Amino acid sequence: MHNLLILSRDADQYRQLIDESALSGLTISQCVDHPAKVNLDLHHTMMLAEPDLAKHILPKCADIRWVQSTWAGVKPLVDLNLPNVRVTGIKDVFGLQMQEYVFTYILHFAREVERFQQLQKQRHWVRPVAEGLSAKRIGILGLGSIGLEVAKTAKHFNMQVVGISRSAQPKPNVDRVYSISQAAEFAPNLDYLVSLLPHTVETEHLINQDFLALLPAHCVLINAGRGQVIDEAALCSTLMARKLKAAVLDVFENEPLPTDHPFWQMENVMITQHSAAISKPTEIVNVFIDNVQRYQQNLGLRFEIDVTRGY
Amino acid sequence: MHNLLILSRDADQYRQLIDESALSGLTISQCVDHPAKVNLDLHHTMMLAEPDLAKHILPKCADIRWVQSTWAGVKPLVDLNLPNVRVTGIKDVFGLQMQEYVFTYILHFAREVERFQQLQKQRHWVRPVAEGLSAKRIGILGLGSIGLEVAKTAKHFNMQVVGISRSAQPKPNVDRVYSISQAAEFAPNLDYLVSLLPHTVETEHLINQDFLALLPAHCVLINAGRGQVIDEAALCSTLMARKLKAAVLDVFENEPLPTDHPFWQMENVMITQHSAAISKPTEIVNVFIDNVQRYQQNLGLRFEIDVTRGY
Repeated sequence: MHNLLILSRDADQYRQLIDESALSGLTISQCVDHPAKVNLDLHHTMMLAEPDLAKHILPKCADIRWVQSTWAGVKPLVDLNLPNVRVTGIKDVFGLQMQEYVFTYILHFAREVERFQQLQKQRHWVRPVAEGLSAKRIGILGLGSIGLEVAKTAKHFNMQVVGISRSAQPKPNVDRVYSISQAAEFAPNLDYLVSLLPHTVETEHLINQDFLALLPAHCVLINAGRGQVIDEAALCSTLMARKLKAAVLDVFENEPLPTDHPFWQMENVMITQHSAAISKPTEIVNVFIDNVQRYQQNLGLRFEIDVTRGY
Repeated sequence: MHNLLILSRDADQYRQLIDESALSGLTISQCVDHPAKVNLDLHHTMMLAEPDLAKHILPKCADIRWVQSTWAGVKPLVDLNLPNVRVTGIKDVFGLQMQEYVFTYILHFAREVERFQQLQKQRHWVRPVAEGLSAKRIGILGLGSIGLEVAKTAKHFNMQVVGISRSAQPKPNVDRVYSISQAAEFAPNLDYLVSLLPHTVETEHLINQDFLALLPAHCVLINAGRGQVIDEAALCSTLMARKLKAAVLDVFENEPLPTDHPFWQMENVMITQHSAAISKPTEIVNVFIDNVQRYQQNLGLRFEIDVTRGY
């Protein structure tokens, strides 16, 4: 028998979904918000949890052996550095939402939506030639499952696709894969730069002043990975100097983005509030149920994180 | 030897492209704008022409046997009802531009771009849940080459796809194909309705008051075909009554759209100025060159129009 703690703003929905599933061998308790309310005397052995809630309580839970994150971003858990706790993440389920997000904004710029809106206000009938996507160049930082979905959609729209990954091994739908050290070859000539990178020691401030200086002034930057990958001060000055066309930012170094942050009112910044891909319990629970069954049978867990590397 | 007349706003570019091609056996003259400037004494036998220019002169050209349109919309030529003049149109080359256009605006609504823009102005950090495209239902009017490209992209984004075509025969990437008489089954439950229909006797005002009344109030209508397919007065009143979420209109019953037309200032109308797919001479000329070679060898012409049916 395993003692499961569900710690999530959606805990009630998760509880119902798990109760309705075929899982057995679990004693379940749940907590919607304040980790301080968790009863530690229950000796939980596994958790289904949002990392930002779990990090407050995990060090006090001596019996926990496995945490299934409800998010893709597991750094709050990895940073706890608990050698006896396995961590599993979420992949794949965000791919379609991420594709939608990335192409909503790429097409917004490629087809000049705001220019048409201005012409409409002026009741002005001209036909501006939007350049579109064909033969435009997209650079993707992070070629995991989500990055490869974005590459596939980019090819569907006849784009040139380049990417950066640790291994620099060839990938489907990517014309050329570079290593992180090859930024100087990767960045020039990009029309769109999309970061999907997680926050790790290796990726922190990867997009810094030097990196930004390599991008052409007509390039649009989209960050739907983690905010810490970008040096926000450097991005801010680059945008102010119009050395980049625009930035579409879903994630930030500090979230919520502070009310006095300059990004809010910059006209070449589009802000979305960490909503590019939302964890939907009906999707996440399937990963968890599969992993519980694997855990009970001592099989390998899906999407397990190497906590020494952070991904 | 054939006497070719190029009649297009892009005539100079076409002339250069044709001069640089391997075509032989042509005597070429050209005219950029006013058909009245054309020298009829040259006894032109074939034309490469924009239909709205060609229609003014074609009845006076006794020797013309074939007109290659530079547009997809050939109705101005068909309406002349000249039994001795063959007409060829343009297909395929607009598919990618049309896909971009349609999905720019579908994603604009699906991912609530304007809601995020408003939240940004308010410096407000909330995470609205955009519903996205997965399992949403798109209805496509017109399942020619462009419609099938749109269907393919819709499937790429995991949408349900239904369509209307004359034959009602099954098509790839379309879950169900209806005939024009089955609008009452086709229209309810649509999240997005996209018209790509040409203007023919059969399609004129197909989207009338009765058709619009079948659509759910949350549906977004996109017209990138021809304006005459929609009864604009009926659409206007439907939008004013909020019985439709929005209309994205590239084409109109009268173009340019008159300055005093109510569409210009309606907040649930987005206007683009007949620019969803632009004829690019570098692409169009390839169709023409191929057809000249076929014409010279008495082979069938690509994209020839059945002038009795209009498509």
